[in-house]
Amino acid sequence: MMNRSLPVQPVVAYLTDFGLNETVGVMKGVVLGIAPEARIVDLTHAIAPQDIASGAWALGATYRYFPAETIFVCIVDPGVGSARRAIALHLGNWRFVGPDNGIFSYVLAEQSLHAAVALSNPAYHLPVISSTFHGRDIFSPAAAHLAQGVSITALGNPIEPDSLQRLDYVRPERHNDHIEARVAYIDHFGNIITTIPIEIVPDLYNRPGARLTFTDIHVQVTARRRFFADESGEAGNEAGPFIYVDSSGHIGVAIRNGNAANTLGIHKESTITFDLME
Amino acid sequence: MMNRSLPVQPVVAYLTDFGLNETVGVMKGVVLGIAPEARIVDLTHAIAPQDIASGAWALGATYRYFPAETIFVCIVDPGVGSARRAIALHLGNWRFVGPDNGIFSYVLAEQSLHAAVALSNPAYHLPVISSTFHGRDIFSPAAAHLAQGVSITALGNPIEPDSLQRLDYVRPERHNDHIEARVAYIDHFGNIITTIPIEIVPDLYNRPGARLTFTDIHVQVTARRRFFADESGEAGNEAGPFIYVDSSGHIGVAIRNGNAANTLGIHKESTITFDLME
Amino acid sequence: MMNRSLPVQPVVAYLTDFGLNETVGVMKGVVLGIAPEARIVDLTHAIAPQDIASGAWALGATYRYFPAETIFVCIVDPGVGSARRAIALHLGNWRFVGPDNGIFSYVLAEQSLHAAVALSNPAYHLPVISSTFHGRDIFSPAAAHLAQGVSITALGNPIEPDSLQRLDYVRPERHNDHIEARVAYIDHFGNIITTIPIEIVPDLYNRPGARLTFTDIHVQVTARRRFFADESGEAGNEAGPFIYVDSSGHIGVAIRNGNAANTLGIHKESTITFDLME
Repeated sequence: MMNRSLPVQPVVAYLTDFGLNETVGVMKGVVLGIAPEARIVDLTHAIAPQDIASGAWALGATYRYFPAETIFVCIVDPGVGSARRAIALHLGNWRFVGPDNGIFSYVLAEQSLHAAVALSNPAYHLPVISSTFHGRDIFSPAAAHLAQGVSITALGNPIEPDSLQRLDYVRPERHNDHIEARVAYIDHFGNIITTIPIEIVPDLYNRPGARLTFTDIHVQVTARRRFFADESGEAGNEAGPFIYVDSSGHIGVAIRNGNAANTLGIHKESTITFDLME
Repeated sequence: MMNRSLPVQPVVAYLTDFGLNETVGVMKGVVLGIAPEARIVDLTHAIAPQDIASGAWALGATYRYFPAETIFVCIVDPGVGSARRAIALHLGNWRFVGPDNGIFSYVLAEQSLHAAVALSNPAYHLPVISSTFHGRDIFSPAAAHLAQGVSITALGNPIEPDSLQRLDYVRPERHNDHIEARVAYIDHFGNIITTIPIEIVPDLYNRPGARLTFTDIHVQVTARRRFFADESGEAGNEAGPFIYVDSSGHIGVAIRNGNAANTLGIHKESTITFDLME
Repeated sequence: MMNRSLPVQPVVAYLTDFGLNETVGVMKGVVLGIAPEARIVDLTHAIAPQDIASGAWALGATYRYFPAETIFVCIVDPGVGSARRAIALHLGNWRFVGPDNGIFSYVLAEQSLHAAVALSNPAYHLPVISSTFHGRDIFSPAAAHLAQGVSITALGNPIEPDSLQRLDYVRPERHNDHIEARVAYIDHFGNIITTIPIEIVPDLYNRPGARLTFTDIHVQVTARRRFFADESGEAGNEAGPFIYVDSSGHIGVAIRNGNAANTLGIHKESTITFDLME
């Protein structure tokens, strides 16, 4: 019942905005027809329709937990059928397939780019290409051929790294004790997760003060908690919003037993300033 | 990390109206108890409850994309516990398990029938059969035994092909430039997909005119687009309904950025006529 | 296409209240990074949020259908981050990982306990532990290491069986013809499933009378049906609630083509008496 000596095929992990219906299932049929031993995983199909920014964030928060060689198929693709490019990227220890529309922004900001190609080689498409379902006809075959051992450079023409679409706010910088950032994601509890990684704020809980400002609506949050039920800090047992570290490793704002985004009226990509204070 | 020399077990693909709950999960436990290396895929569990026609269509639009030998377990089964038969079919390169209620209609219209049996052999059921959950107790064990190499004819008594339940409208015929058909499916965007395969209308975009009539409500659609954002044809940039080719390979009617079925008041199985005109 | 001679790794089956989002997918990435050939199954992610009693029931109704050696990861965990213990149990032929909050109550009542440990060995955690996502950081690594062949006793310190949290009502007893029980679960059709296993009521359909009383609201149900469409018994074709045997093997109350729980106003864990009468 223990270890096997044979190597295994890579994981193929799907992140889409398709919801749950046969469009997801048919893509898996395509993969298994080409790569019979691929291990297919649903990362998520619940990205809000056409919400590239949330898809990019969900990918950025999770890809590192997957084994090396995993192939991510990421399809939030409002431009399907238009001139947007279909691409494959080799970034760090992973490979990524999807539209060139910014969905790989967080990974591009964090990992070395080893290869970038357009999926222009029809030998690795299905024989018939629809105008509306590239997930089935182009992206899934590309991922399956990668799983079978096809080189990424065989999938199509190389593209210039600088020409890749990127969200422009994914990697905020700290200037002394001031950071300008964005809301990256609203999770299913209504917690507001920012683009600020905890790595650039290691002193979050050691400083006398912190102030997160939603600049669009002039709302400030200063209470901090170490975990949701924490009543030890300045927030005590009050019901208001507080700053915390999300399980993704980013600064967030939450309301205990409440929906912070709805209560405060915060939207994705809202602008933020964050200040640590003496 | 590449190809293995060992053969792999068939894919077992589920199509049900169960939604997402432990009834889906427990069926997979049954399969893996019998066929430990079966590769289980969720084709979909989002068929509308008891909607045999939509389940039949979703199967018909996707099964061809799965590898040969795939075993489809199809459970939209309002008659569970009644006298409807539980069956297994060998059709083309695939095998199918489910109730005999029409859910295999599109596949039966397209593929050669190599074998049809009733699941009457209790050796391939679970030891205890409930009256309400044949997915767990009869269909999943049958699929798993097929995956393990049991012959389809061992599962039970042969049945007469002519006695199989079939929807009577799945294969419309073209008479000169006139087709009588049905609405096959309303997809999750509200696009209206008909039973008319593009194969019988290869001249769709070469003819001066086309007219799709929803005969129940006397509504006609004549605009055609090659893809959703296409503004080159007679539809231009108007907001009305248009004829297109769905990614399933069938004639459809859509409204760009809208829900055609709701706007037009169209229901599944509505009757249609389609005419190509000089 | 048939049997392989190599052993296969255990099934890792997830039961959570996470719904469908990337939190489920990332846990699978963690498992496959540690146990590349684990066969991962979604038992369900649709347990109502923080509803330990329903999670316990759904596990109790399904685990027996999974192959021996299956590792269940069960995460309905309102106490995450508090002092509740993270545990692993070896019960009967299966292993279970999750919080010590009662979610294993039905299995504990039915199977022999071979081992119980706290997940206290950091060698089998992820290197960084968040305060809110033990599913990713503690439970999934534990399950994956078990799948890889690590002994359950290596995962942490043994714990006293008597100290395990248990729902106190999972195994009702019959005293002559009287049983005191609870509502265990409301299924997605609104059927009311009780904690009474059919094993202790083998004479259900042989006795002249039966009476199930929802004691909180003083409602009695006496009609019995063998299956939903059964019109042979005293219930005839009436539309009212009736007693039946659920596919889980427990006594239930349903309304044909209706939602019994909503109609009767019944909640989970409501108290019941059940009497067989001459």
